[in-house]
Amino acid sequence: MNFASDNAYGAWPEIVAAIGTAASGAVSSYGEDAITAGLRDKFSALFEREVAVFPVISGTAANALALATLTPQHGAIFCHAESHIAVDECGAPEFFTHGAKLVGLEGKDAKLTPAILESALAHYHKGFVHHVQPSCLSVTQASELGTVYTPGEIAALSSLAHAHAMNVHMDGARFANALATLDCSPAEATWRAGVDVLSFGATKNGALGAEAVIFFNPKEAGDFEYRRKKGGHLISKMRFVSAQLDAYLEGGRWLAAARRANALATRLAEGLGAVAGAEIAHPVGANAVFARLPQAMIARLRAQGAQFYDWSPPEAGRTLVRLVTSFATPQGDIEKFLMIARGG
Amino acid sequence: MNFASDNAYGAWPEIVAAIGTAASGAVSSYGEDAITAGLRDKFSALFEREVAVFPVISGTAANALALATLTPQHGAIFCHAESHIAVDECGAPEFFTHGAKLVGLEGKDAKLTPAILESALAHYHKGFVHHVQPSCLSVTQASELGTVYTPGEIAALSSLAHAHAMNVHMDGARFANALATLDCSPAEATWRAGVDVLSFGATKNGALGAEAVIFFNPKEAGDFEYRRKKGGHLISKMRFVSAQLDAYLEGGRWLAAARRANALATRLAEGLGAVAGAEIAHPVGANAVFARLPQAMIARLRAQGAQFYDWSPPEAGRTLVRLVTSFATPQGDIEKFLMIARGG
Amino acid sequence: MNFASDNAYGAWPEIVAAIGTAASGAVSSYGEDAITAGLRDKFSALFEREVAVFPVISGTAANALALATLTPQHGAIFCHAESHIAVDECGAPEFFTHGAKLVGLEGKDAKLTPAILESALAHYHKGFVHHVQPSCLSVTQASELGTVYTPGEIAALSSLAHAHAMNVHMDGARFANALATLDCSPAEATWRAGVDVLSFGATKNGALGAEAVIFFNPKEAGDFEYRRKKGGHLISKMRFVSAQLDAYLEGGRWLAAARRANALATRLAEGLGAVAGAEIAHPVGANAVFARLPQAMIARLRAQGAQFYDWSPPEAGRTLVRLVTSFATPQGDIEKFLMIARGG
Amino acid sequence: MNFASDNAYGAWPEIVAAIGTAASGAVSSYGEDAITAGLRDKFSALFEREVAVFPVISGTAANALALATLTPQHGAIFCHAESHIAVDECGAPEFFTHGAKLVGLEGKDAKLTPAILESALAHYHKGFVHHVQPSCLSVTQASELGTVYTPGEIAALSSLAHAHAMNVHMDGARFANALATLDCSPAEATWRAGVDVLSFGATKNGALGAEAVIFFNPKEAGDFEYRRKKGGHLISKMRFVSAQLDAYLEGGRWLAAARRANALATRLAEGLGAVAGAEIAHPVGANAVFARLPQAMIARLRAQGAQFYDWSPPEAGRTLVRLVTSFATPQGDIEKFLMIARGG
Repeated sequence: MNFASDNAYGAWPEIVAAIGTAASGAVSSYGEDAITAGLRDKFSALFEREVAVFPVISGTAANALALATLTPQHGAIFCHAESHIAVDECGAPEFFTHGAKLVGLEGKDAKLTPAILESALAHYHKGFVHHVQPSCLSVTQASELGTVYTPGEIAALSSLAHAHAMNVHMDGARFANALATLDCSPAEATWRAGVDVLSFGATKNGALGAEAVIFFNPKEAGDFEYRRKKGGHLISKMRFVSAQLDAYLEGGRWLAAARRANALATRLAEGLGAVAGAEIAHPVGANAVFARLPQAMIARLRAQGAQFYDWSPPEAGRTLVRLVTSFATPQGDIEKFLMIARGG
Repeated sequence: MNFASDNAYGAWPEIVAAIGTAASGAVSSYGEDAITAGLRDKFSALFEREVAVFPVISGTAANALALATLTPQHGAIFCHAESHIAVDECGAPEFFTHGAKLVGLEGKDAKLTPAILESALAHYHKGFVHHVQPSCLSVTQASELGTVYTPGEIAALSSLAHAHAMNVHMDGARFANALATLDCSPAEATWRAGVDVLSFGATKNGALGAEAVIFFNPKEAGDFEYRRKKGGHLISKMRFVSAQLDAYLEGGRWLAAARRANALATRLAEGLGAVAGAEIAHPVGANAVFARLPQAMIARLRAQGAQFYDWSPPEAGRTLVRLVTSFATPQGDIEKFLMIARGG
Repeated sequence: MNFASDNAYGAWPEIVAAIGTAASGAVSSYGEDAITAGLRDKFSALFEREVAVFPVISGTAANALALATLTPQHGAIFCHAESHIAVDECGAPEFFTHGAKLVGLEGKDAKLTPAILESALAHYHKGFVHHVQPSCLSVTQASELGTVYTPGEIAALSSLAHAHAMNVHMDGARFANALATLDCSPAEATWRAGVDVLSFGATKNGALGAEAVIFFNPKEAGDFEYRRKKGGHLISKMRFVSAQLDAYLEGGRWLAAARRANALATRLAEGLGAVAGAEIAHPVGANAVFARLPQAMIARLRAQGAQFYDWSPPEAGRTLVRLVTSFATPQGDIEKFLMIARGG
Repeated sequence: MNFASDNAYGAWPEIVAAIGTAASGAVSSYGEDAITAGLRDKFSALFEREVAVFPVISGTAANALALATLTPQHGAIFCHAESHIAVDECGAPEFFTHGAKLVGLEGKDAKLTPAILESALAHYHKGFVHHVQPSCLSVTQASELGTVYTPGEIAALSSLAHAHAMNVHMDGARFANALATLDCSPAEATWRAGVDVLSFGATKNGALGAEAVIFFNPKEAGDFEYRRKKGGHLISKMRFVSAQLDAYLEGGRWLAAARRANALATRLAEGLGAVAGAEIAHPVGANAVFARLPQAMIARLRAQGAQFYDWSPPEAGRTLVRLVTSFATPQGDIEKFLMIARGG
């Protein structure tokens, strides 16, 4: 019963098979192959406009390289205080931007609002050389707490960001999970709502290690290619990353997998919400459930093999825990977990 | 007939199969899995001493992260002027070290000698704050021109480097090819000859994207783990990189594959050396042949589908070209190439 | 009536004279001169222990170079959210550290407490590679709001920081002003209270452009000299910076000047506190007064030539303003300012 | 008899006096003062076009900040192998550019030619992501060996650089000495010959610590101001740096001082050239003499108090030494030096 992370699970057989298919023969390296070339068309079709696509192998690389392309070294990147880029990347954005500043903002359910952003921007004076300059807004979709922004919410944030000459980056490590919940197209969830650059994740949803940085305005990609190379992220046998992304998109498999993970999370939350002493802490919009559970229940679950993270220190006999479901979490694990939670 | 690069070829079926095997089930991410843990023992056995092993996904990442761990920002890294780190990594070592300086030295057949290094060191004054400080020697094994250092040659260089308090890094993107040629153990080729850190390549010799940074003195690994994370190179589903390295070492497959590639190169060089107008430019120690070919021969070869790089501009009717063989180059391609070269 | 900043005022005649004296003759450059050599003894005597002293020409340089020496690129620097390093240096610490993270903490009167630091540290897990690692605590003395830490308060913070293997840096851009208020020796205010490195400011208190980075344990200075050079901060005619520091310390002039500035601030605060509608917002511990003044009063003051900064946006008809006094602020300006404030 | 460096000498009395004059009263800090504002007009007049001027306090800062503004992190900066930026700045350009590469080229008398540059450029492929991209040419005027480029020579280099979309930077730490020798205007020596940015030195020629970065096309200054701040080089009491530059230009004093230094060097070279066993190694175009002197003569000179640097290791009983004259070198020191050289 592994609910520790969606990256605890391996990979889809179809993605492994695609790698096997891609493994034979000689092709040009460093992304000059046909599979990589095809991604541009596929992502352009998916997003209903001409996009630039850059495969990389980790979400941290996708985010840090995207942010470095958007942000000068004297820039400020506004993000949620609990966001992955602020907390879990060991300062990778600061490293790749050569010292830009991440400004972590507080917001309910790990989401930002225009009011929060506006209030933060009031502290920065345009052209005042002593202050880092607002350059980028980064939103996480789905968020660190498993919540989801509506396209309208994103649009309102983007509009404010653009009015301050800031670019908008979306960390979509779990973009599939968010989209599976939202009743909208990929375009509506992103550039139509003002997103300039998307870190499109596949790893957590069934790839081995593949993410795509999508620039909705290809001209804004600037020197991304050089940054990727200089960061050691231009891999020679690129076809193997591209083949993962290709198989990921194939036939809408990515959304089906995300729907499955989300449904498991919803089922888990419903079940847990009905257990005495347990409390769901945030709306479940994607594939994660945050719940406050009694210490005894937590001990019982772990004793019987459930793996998950504590999200904050114990308080009044309960601890906030994170339970993540994935494309491959066995359905039975949900029921087993709930049974143990109920005291069974 | 692809002789452009050894990374033009895909991957061994056994490595793809190992990935498939690793794909099922849930394990801890970020390298806390059993396959990754096992690598330490396997590499320690291979090198006959306790080593620290860090899998990454590109040779540039391996080199740049290793060099950054060994070299302060005010340091100088001595290397051959034609080395990959100096020429083909778009300044990645400078980026990861925060501005250390690569000092490219000239040397026959892309190899350095103690005399060359000593002569370069004479320009640097220890403790003179205006000069970058000699901190690291990086040698490439096999070299950019397909030549190979003997353990004795490495030992002489290492000894000089250590006498100047410099660390020794070996860029072993084609370490397998070098070792297949040398009649010695991995230990003799590396730490017994004074190498401190090795970028152990697997990608060019049949992996999808897997290299291992090996610290022969684990304590010297220092903050490598943080650098890897901060560089976006700690991938979540590490088992898939580790599984490649595991299958690569399995049963000596890596050396068998390298021997095959080397034998093809030797055959190609022998054949080409016998063709009128063609001249082998450097000793063939690994899996690359550098030859001066008449322009007409080059045109004929390319017209019939041979792919390879020009290595320097035409001179007196001939061009120096690079021909690389790999673990998967078809034997028949060699004969076909030679036949066309001969005018057939 | 310039209360905008203490760096709006020029320099002491004695410091200018010292520069003139130092200007003749030929001496070794880059700090190999006698005046610079003498600083070590003078600062060691002042601080009652052997220290290492590095003159630089700006407070930002002093702070950023000191922090970069203390903090690895994967480190976290804890500081007050309103501190100069966090707000007013355009990200210089992030630049010089190659991407370490500043963690800005809230605290009353721009001061930190052990409880605040402890609470922040709870979010960082030692050895957890995804998180930046707590490496440094930076306190500002006097603080951004003109308040002062007692040696006991510093000692309590240092003790906690050291218990977490963090170094303690003190930004002493206004160290003289703080010390003039505290009834203690320089040693008691710094290393006896656990401070490891001090940015010792002179510029704001009457030098032209001179600060000294003081390492209380000279061995911890590490590669500071190389960082200073690489940052363009090792100036060739160092004697001119050192001569400023020398004249600054001479005969206790620095403390006399700070006492003067502090007394003016105290007088200003007392006077302003008695004016209807005005309110002193923070304890006046050094040479700055933060006051909430009615908009009309502010307009009147500015109309008659008073210069000062708004510190936050207007609220309920009043604005928080900052009034800074200096070594050279005319006594009469205080009285004139108060007269206008009173409506005269 | 100090011929070690021109920065061994102090400062002009007039410059010290200007600092004294600037020291009184309160003005806006960080370059918002009248003296700094006036520099723009004065430099614009001097160079006969509207320029952007940024005072800094060291030549390394001027060069590194200028180069970082002109060069992306994936760029290459071409310069002479013996240039200050390549050899004597401890890698500051690499640090400020975040890892751009300096390509040091060999050339007679420390000068580059179009043929040398063209030959180097042949190794770089535009748009080839593995190679750093040619972005900047940096020439040193006067050169490290005291030679001078004619405007025509600069123009030929600039023309080639611009044809390859590279900017042209001139390191003018000794620009005054070069101009004093050339029979041309400042404009002819710089932008009319294609120079885009000039590090205009004053320190070596009699300032305390003052250099100006001049952008001949102000729009190309880009984010220089933020870089200067982030590098800790925006000093608060800027008037004191600006006052030096102001007094430096006043009444052509800078050129008079340079002419004096040059004349001393010429006299020294003439005298030395006539001494048996001594040989002038490079044309004397500015204020430095490079001479091969017999070891015995060197010992005799040093025994009697002459200070100078060895420039290369002894060879055949002689050593190449550097002798630098300055605005303040006593005339008598030349004659005394020559007398000792002659064996007196």
